[in-house]
Amino acid sequence: MDFSSLDPLIRPRSLAIIGASDDPTRIGGRPIAYMKTRGFAGELWPVNPKRAEVQGLRCFADVASLPGVPDVGLIAVPGAAALEAVEALGAKGCKAAIMFTAGFAEVGAEGAAMQDRLVEAATRHGMRLLGPNCLGLFNDAIGFYPIFSSSFEQGWPVHNGRIGIASQSGAYGTHLYSLARNREIGTPVCVTTGNEAEVALGDVLGWMAQADEVDVICAYAEGIRESEKFLAALELARRNRKPVVMMKVGRSELGAHAAQSHTASIAGNDAVTDAVLAEFGVVRARNTEELLDIAYAATHRIYPAANTLGVVTVSGGAGVLISDVADTLGFALPPMPEAAQERLRGFVPFCAPRNPVDCTAQAFNQIELVGEFARAMAGDGGYASCLGFVTQVGGSPTVGPKVRAQMAKVAKEFPDRLWAVSIIAPPEVQREWEADGFLVFEDPTRAVVALHAQGRFGEAFSRVASPPVSAPQVTLPATTPSEAEAKRILAEAGIPAVPEEACADAEAAVAVARRIGFPVVMKILSPDILHKSEIGGVLLGVADEAAVRQGFATLMARAAEHAPGARIEGALVAKQVTGAVEMALGLVRDPVFGPVAMVGLGGVFIEVLKDVAFRRCPFDAAEAERLVRSLKGFPLLDGARGRPKADVAALAAALAALSRFAVAAGPRLLSVDVNPLLVLPEGAFAADAVVELSTP
Amino acid sequence: MDFSSLDPLIRPRSLAIIGASDDPTRIGGRPIAYMKTRGFAGELWPVNPKRAEVQGLRCFADVASLPGVPDVGLIAVPGAAALEAVEALGAKGCKAAIMFTAGFAEVGAEGAAMQDRLVEAATRHGMRLLGPNCLGLFNDAIGFYPIFSSSFEQGWPVHNGRIGIASQSGAYGTHLYSLARNREIGTPVCVTTGNEAEVALGDVLGWMAQADEVDVICAYAEGIRESEKFLAALELARRNRKPVVMMKVGRSELGAHAAQSHTASIAGNDAVTDAVLAEFGVVRARNTEELLDIAYAATHRIYPAANTLGVVTVSGGAGVLISDVADTLGFALPPMPEAAQERLRGFVPFCAPRNPVDCTAQAFNQIELVGEFARAMAGDGGYASCLGFVTQVGGSPTVGPKVRAQMAKVAKEFPDRLWAVSIIAPPEVQREWEADGFLVFEDPTRAVVALHAQGRFGEAFSRVASPPVSAPQVTLPATTPSEAEAKRILAEAGIPAVPEEACADAEAAVAVARRIGFPVVMKILSPDILHKSEIGGVLLGVADEAAVRQGFATLMARAAEHAPGARIEGALVAKQVTGAVEMALGLVRDPVFGPVAMVGLGGVFIEVLKDVAFRRCPFDAAEAERLVRSLKGFPLLDGARGRPKADVAALAAALAALSRFAVAAGPRLLSVDVNPLLVLPEGAFAADAVVELSTP
Repeated sequence: MDFSSLDPLIRPRSLAIIGASDDPTRIGGRPIAYMKTRGFAGELWPVNPKRAEVQGLRCFADVASLPGVPDVGLIAVPGAAALEAVEALGAKGCKAAIMFTAGFAEVGAEGAAMQDRLVEAATRHGMRLLGPNCLGLFNDAIGFYPIFSSSFEQGWPVHNGRIGIASQSGAYGTHLYSLARNREIGTPVCVTTGNEAEVALGDVLGWMAQADEVDVICAYAEGIRESEKFLAALELARRNRKPVVMMKVGRSELGAHAAQSHTASIAGNDAVTDAVLAEFGVVRARNTEELLDIAYAATHRIYPAANTLGVVTVSGGAGVLISDVADTLGFALPPMPEAAQERLRGFVPFCAPRNPVDCTAQAFNQIELVGEFARAMAGDGGYASCLGFVTQVGGSPTVGPKVRAQMAKVAKEFPDRLWAVSIIAPPEVQREWEADGFLVFEDPTRAVVALHAQGRFGEAFSRVASPPVSAPQVTLPATTPSEAEAKRILAEAGIPAVPEEACADAEAAVAVARRIGFPVVMKILSPDILHKSEIGGVLLGVADEAAVRQGFATLMARAAEHAPGARIEGALVAKQVTGAVEMALGLVRDPVFGPVAMVGLGGVFIEVLKDVAFRRCPFDAAEAERLVRSLKGFPLLDGARGRPKADVAALAAALAALSRFAVAAGPRLLSVDVNPLLVLPEGAFAADAVVELSTP
Repeated sequence: MDFSSLDPLIRPRSLAIIGASDDPTRIGGRPIAYMKTRGFAGELWPVNPKRAEVQGLRCFADVASLPGVPDVGLIAVPGAAALEAVEALGAKGCKAAIMFTAGFAEVGAEGAAMQDRLVEAATRHGMRLLGPNCLGLFNDAIGFYPIFSSSFEQGWPVHNGRIGIASQSGAYGTHLYSLARNREIGTPVCVTTGNEAEVALGDVLGWMAQADEVDVICAYAEGIRESEKFLAALELARRNRKPVVMMKVGRSELGAHAAQSHTASIAGNDAVTDAVLAEFGVVRARNTEELLDIAYAATHRIYPAANTLGVVTVSGGAGVLISDVADTLGFALPPMPEAAQERLRGFVPFCAPRNPVDCTAQAFNQIELVGEFARAMAGDGGYASCLGFVTQVGGSPTVGPKVRAQMAKVAKEFPDRLWAVSIIAPPEVQREWEADGFLVFEDPTRAVVALHAQGRFGEAFSRVASPPVSAPQVTLPATTPSEAEAKRILAEAGIPAVPEEACADAEAAVAVARRIGFPVVMKILSPDILHKSEIGGVLLGVADEAAVRQGFATLMARAAEHAPGARIEGALVAKQVTGAVEMALGLVRDPVFGPVAMVGLGGVFIEVLKDVAFRRCPFDAAEAERLVRSLKGFPLLDGARGRPKADVAALAAALAALSRFAVAAGPRLLSVDVNPLLVLPEGAFAADAVVELSTP
């Protein structure tokens, strides 16, 4: 998929401003003032029938009178005039428009109808349309500022990193921009998508994934509308080694409610979103600071596929704090080699040289020791990420520069590492550390989170695409099938059910039991007896052929005694399943991402503990096993408390089969619920299944 | 418990400095330089036999020659001289000492022995001793700076809040101080405890809990050594309505390891620590920023016992983000009353007036609307905590002051609320918002966490102390009892086992079954038959007297047939337990906090899912029920998936009984493990139990 059709929108050579204002504080005036200040590299054509000049620029009466075809038109006129402007721009041959105008889908049904007309017009003219109801965008690389935010009153983008911001919310996008600028983190490009009538977040992500202006992408989403573009954009970013950090809100039920009351967007199922983002190596931030921290660290463009953390500290306590956070994240802190530990003890006898390495305050008394410790971390330890907890010493006018010089020398010797420091220092001192190649954080916890994320990017970037998964042929019944029929369909698809068979007499029962293996369970088979166990109609652990014969007789006798009028059809002989781990498989059809498979702890636990993993369909058994192993309850399958290990391969095979079935079955398949799936030391069998279909 | 014996240590009228230096950058010189700069209100007596004057002060040759008895002695001399200094100060009548000197317990066995001698000397003289190996402390209220940190090179404490810092780590304590000062948060008192040979963290917390200098306490702990003082201090803080925010590191296994390599401290069991802190309303911070955020918010001294959050925002997206975080924390965001929503829609037709209330950017065009929305939140909404997401507009030179004035007017009308804003603004503008009574945060997420914590303090402050729980008389056997004996002991203590009885003949079985209630389980009773079920020796669901008689005969026949030589003692008749929820009860003896009870999901789930709650013993049934309800798996007991509700009261009664038993049994009781405890719609019964005892 090619995203270059957004070039005229974000990287144009000429801009027409429909509704241009001479007042630099008005919506139609701010963009002109900003572009004059930042020196827009292209042509700037104000359009306003009432003026000959706007902010010192020649103004045109209408689009038709423009001296050329603008690459993009900025529409800042209200209501109906906005639609006229789209038509006029289209007639002129313009290929893109940005629309500030509000009052469309966000205000109800009538507005939505007007919005549909906008899209129809834009599509007819082959125009890309950003908005309506959007705050605009900026691309500082060419001084392009079609945006009416007041946030530039407090400053312009800095040139310390090339982060692109793609945001569905204008207020949040500029909030993020302002935070980044105050931390002197460079965000040269920011695009806010407003109502997403035509251009959606996926387009913007895709453009940034291939744009030279952007190394790292920060995205803010309330809901994803179009999965195809969105997924193609994420895959392109992955292939181009551009990390995507995302704030996807609407996580909780409460949040989803707020999302609905805010826009017409689909907040989507959060677990599904998590699964889809993980699939492409997108790191989801928990809050805005984390979003910026991760993006900031990513600007060093070092993404270690096998990330390890080495920590050197002057406070044992901080070392513990850092270890705690790393452990929570699953960020490996391998110990230093013994020989290196011994050498460090030679420098400072009471240091703690394992990792975190506590060099004690002694290192500040003999400043060259700082270098020795740093070199040991990078050289002997070989850590991909190296973090120094230097705290207020890093900002000390007397000691700080010496410590920095020592560490900087080592950082230069190992330029392939992520070097970070936790220091307390004024901004200008922080910039000095940054100039020497260090990522600077005040809080060590935040440093650990940001460094860890770089490894997650690295893993995704190094991932080889799975071979395509072929889907089987599936014939679906006309209506939602019965349990037995559902089990048969799933068994055909590769998810076997617990073997059982109806037997009319004792000899048939013996034959069945022999076939499915002892011990077996025997049950009275009668449409008239609902509560079999109450009349002793269920025999467990029937161990051999003789017992089956005797059991058949016992069941018949009990039926005759306790339910004299009932129709007795014989006995059901089923495999006795004991010691199984009860798992659950499921399938939901996400409105955006299509069929999504689920695996989790089954039985009553599924709803209470929600220990489940999701994955977009289809996928292979290796991926299925990875999902199973990601469950918190995985030890239950892996022989917890001395139980035999369950057949994880059979479980994974069933899950992968379900994912192929989902694709083959197509959109008529609404959901599947296999709960429990009994996973034995050998084999995994559906004990109950529901397959929900829409009518053809 | 009275903590005033620390007064001479932290609030002295005179100080002797043993090892005083004329060089203001040396350990023995920095404190003098700092106290001269900050104007220590008391007497300052340098002691150094080699000098007549130190930094312009008269210097004394030894402690004996001092012109008076110093309230406290600061010891900055190495090794053996440090012990002599304690003796000399003690002989003079001094009641407190602060020891910078290192080389004691932190460096091994020999150092530990020297440290013991220090403590012996101090105790003999009735002296409190801070350290050794500590960085010192400061109390800015009296300009008292017996501390050798270089962090004051970057600035002194500000007077914007009265937070006390109590830290086991010197580096971390000053790290915290530096961060607070840079954010212009006032921390007038900071005490670091070093090796804690005598004065421990609990002493410092207790002193701060009763000290006039301190409103809010920030604590940093690696391990708690003395539970009695520590708990008394936390209870005193609670009663005095002083919030305690704590960073307790050593959370993970990795972290606990690092803690051990750092100090001789006991990192303790993290879940136990969590339980103990929660008991006293201490809020545990997850990282340093959160620690400071919560303490900062606490300086407003508004602790709503029933905390609710009202949010007004100019970005729907931010509203969603805030809702998500609040939901994760369990922070209630009740909707605005319908009438108020209607009124707000009258102001801004397309606002989202529920809560979060999105007043849209329209409010900035009609600035008086900001006041209307704020008043609606506090007045109609009645929220205890009110948060405004104002973002970069809050820092805008043109619009910011007008928005602030509107909101400040309303904040003054409702002074009992916690008012907070999320703004992006330069520090001087942040101070203006603070001066108008607002807590200022950049990130709205952090604001929500900090506001939520104030309610947790409020709940703890309003809690009425539980009546004392009386412990029963317990006689323990000489050795660890068998399962049957363990069950008997626990049953006596109030934790009944599943009723079962050995019956020699059919009529006895009928009598037992009648007593314990139908249906029952019947099992062959024989010391020679291990695998009863394999020979059909277990009958489930025996429903009535006739069935018991028939069942007894069946069992005897099967025994005769399948195990002809076995000794048959009759049958075991037990209550048939079906549909029980398998829970687990447990008891561990924490080395610091004594017996701690546990409740959680039982069976194999306990180890895999670790869905458990802990509580220090003893406690009553109400508290036990609160613990049970705090479990993630509680819905399993509460009728999940249409199951009957389990007898939570019986479970709580058993848990409370276990907690009383733990106290009554005393230190010989090492652990109890009841797993599973079968919780039925009526009753809760131990199905397995282990009671571990030490030999008397």
